[in-house]
Amino acid sequence: MFSQPNHPALLIPGPIEFDDAVLQSMSHYSESHVGAPFVATFGETLAMLRKLFQTTDPSSQPFVISGSGTLGWDLVAANLAESGDDVLVLHTGYFADSFADCFETYGAKPTQLKAPIGSRPQLPEIEKALKEKKYKLLTVTHVDTSTGVLSELKALSELVHRVSPETLIIVDGVCSVGCEEIDFDKWQLDGVITASQKAIGCPAGLSISMFSGRAVKSFQSRKTPPGSYFASFKNWMPIMQNYEAKKASYFATPSPQLIHALHTSLTQILSKPLSERFAAHHATSQKIKKAVADLGLKQLASDPADQANGMTAIYLPENVKAPELLPNLLKKGVIFAGGLHKEIATKYIRFGHMGVSVTDTKRDDIDRAIQALQTGLSDAGYQKA
Amino acid sequence: MFSQPNHPALLIPGPIEFDDAVLQSMSHYSESHVGAPFVATFGETLAMLRKLFQTTDPSSQPFVISGSGTLGWDLVAANLAESGDDVLVLHTGYFADSFADCFETYGAKPTQLKAPIGSRPQLPEIEKALKEKKYKLLTVTHVDTSTGVLSELKALSELVHRVSPETLIIVDGVCSVGCEEIDFDKWQLDGVITASQKAIGCPAGLSISMFSGRAVKSFQSRKTPPGSYFASFKNWMPIMQNYEAKKASYFATPSPQLIHALHTSLTQILSKPLSERFAAHHATSQKIKKAVADLGLKQLASDPADQANGMTAIYLPENVKAPELLPNLLKKGVIFAGGLHKEIATKYIRFGHMGVSVTDTKRDDIDRAIQALQTGLSDAGYQKA
Repeated sequence: MFSQPNHPALLIPGPIEFDDAVLQSMSHYSESHVGAPFVATFGETLAMLRKLFQTTDPSSQPFVISGSGTLGWDLVAANLAESGDDVLVLHTGYFADSFADCFETYGAKPTQLKAPIGSRPQLPEIEKALKEKKYKLLTVTHVDTSTGVLSELKALSELVHRVSPETLIIVDGVCSVGCEEIDFDKWQLDGVITASQKAIGCPAGLSISMFSGRAVKSFQSRKTPPGSYFASFKNWMPIMQNYEAKKASYFATPSPQLIHALHTSLTQILSKPLSERFAAHHATSQKIKKAVADLGLKQLASDPADQANGMTAIYLPENVKAPELLPNLLKKGVIFAGGLHKEIATKYIRFGHMGVSVTDTKRDDIDRAIQALQTGLSDAGYQKA
Repeated sequence: MFSQPNHPALLIPGPIEFDDAVLQSMSHYSESHVGAPFVATFGETLAMLRKLFQTTDPSSQPFVISGSGTLGWDLVAANLAESGDDVLVLHTGYFADSFADCFETYGAKPTQLKAPIGSRPQLPEIEKALKEKKYKLLTVTHVDTSTGVLSELKALSELVHRVSPETLIIVDGVCSVGCEEIDFDKWQLDGVITASQKAIGCPAGLSISMFSGRAVKSFQSRKTPPGSYFASFKNWMPIMQNYEAKKASYFATPSPQLIHALHTSLTQILSKPLSERFAAHHATSQKIKKAVADLGLKQLASDPADQANGMTAIYLPENVKAPELLPNLLKKGVIFAGGLHKEIATKYIRFGHMGVSVTDTKRDDIDRAIQALQTGLSDAGYQKA
């Protein structure tokens, strides 16, 4: 039976630690991408994604494409926006800036609604913005990996449907799908894009997304062809529909090994109620956030309602610098991430707590990480004021 | 030590059979994409690609991006062509049609120079076409996976440099890099795009490419920004340069597991002279082509000079249909591919012979496949006339 060698616990906000069975699936022997065994595996994977996103509407369309999470932005910008379309981008960190860049590449006109670092645009401002202009799309980063700010989707979607019902609601769920609740149908979302290597717990290399029937219709009524070839719904939609119907189909060669690993991780996730998974992430997150507060440290996300459940972005004490602290934590067997938000990158660190590090009770990654952080700060001469 | 379970030999023109050590690298424990160990692995991988493509010119630029081989077309069309640019696409099968579609997506104007099925455009026609119009790019499919037609690159490049020296020469090497000779510098190529899962012998999921300093300069003198976000040289070039210099860098999360597998396969390939590798593929190909002729069957590529060394596309006897023959071959433990060229898809099969099935003397994949083909045809009632 495969088991991983000893290695430092990877507690960055993705890639995360992977389960042995998932990693073992990565080394599956070679299969034809159009042969019956792999077609069945891919079809089942797509069907399981519907459960993960909590959608039973048959008009919803899942996509799994070789690529990184970033490719999800191209899927949205090249298929659901047309040149000149206005897009409202809610900004909670680094990733909104990049999503806006992506829209501009394909000719759409992004308007960013920014909040101070560590918070998020508030509903009244969003309502005002939606009333000022007709937006084809609104995008929201569910959890911004650069700041650990969590956006609230349910009330946001209600607002958009009330104030600007034709605007499609697109969620960047790269750092949220699998650890934050997402109720695709009930919340009337139109698109959620994510990646394999975060809370879904499968190695990097897959762009994973779900789009609503309304989004698909919007795509079908485009006046111009999609702006990308590799990210084109036109090229991929028939392929995804065929695989899900267990029919071989070809546009570009998928990665059987990655799809096997995703199949394994989704099977594991769906073996228990999703609510339990979300609750486990919330409980672990609360434990970590309490430990951070006990150390006298502050999070970037100051309001508890804005704090992600799968990661914590922590301001360092004034005299402790990330480039010195992080290598010391590595010596203690724990890998955290440095800052990513452009304006304050050196002043904070990021602690990812998703997947098996949270749900596998045989692992002690989280306790070891909290302890490493405590002693690491102490080594750096920090004492709580 | 990891070893693969018994499974049918996958002898389609990609994905191919993979070496145990390569598959084992796929299940590498999780690493940070910006941590020193993985940065070193990625940097070494990029340096090894220079050797695989036989380029020592420091201005050449390798790219390894999560995606399929198809993404390479977007890299070319979105970065090296601008809206309105004319592109000459040499057509030897299915893949030229798709490459042309990709150019159109980004606003370039492809002109296809087509040859009858099984052959390739000849130099005098190409010279005539190049004299009629100024082409920004010329593209050639080195081996068209749909037909097994091999294009000749050296003489083609000499022609282009003589007749239209400003035209960039782009090679679709998805089914050739690693089994057909490519001398990037000496042949003065400007871009070769490929994928991981064919003769390079690493599971699918990576777009791999090499561009010349001249191509990079052409990109840098664009009047308009690149047409794609995920496939943008502007986004990826600094990342590739940083990784190769062993510096952490971020645009989108790479797949450490796939990069480890690629590192392993490239290390294996480069452990022997490339000339030996090409000679082994040629010898095996000749053996297969002789067996096909001995069976009284014809190849799509009728002229031996046009026949690929990593695959063979074989016309079936009139009364034998691929949908009946292929399942019988599977029962004999061998997987071949059906036809892909639109006009004749049901009338032929494709036999891939690349990578460890050719180079690993402990394997008997090829002999078993030839035997399975012989008995399979006999089972179907075929006797050589």
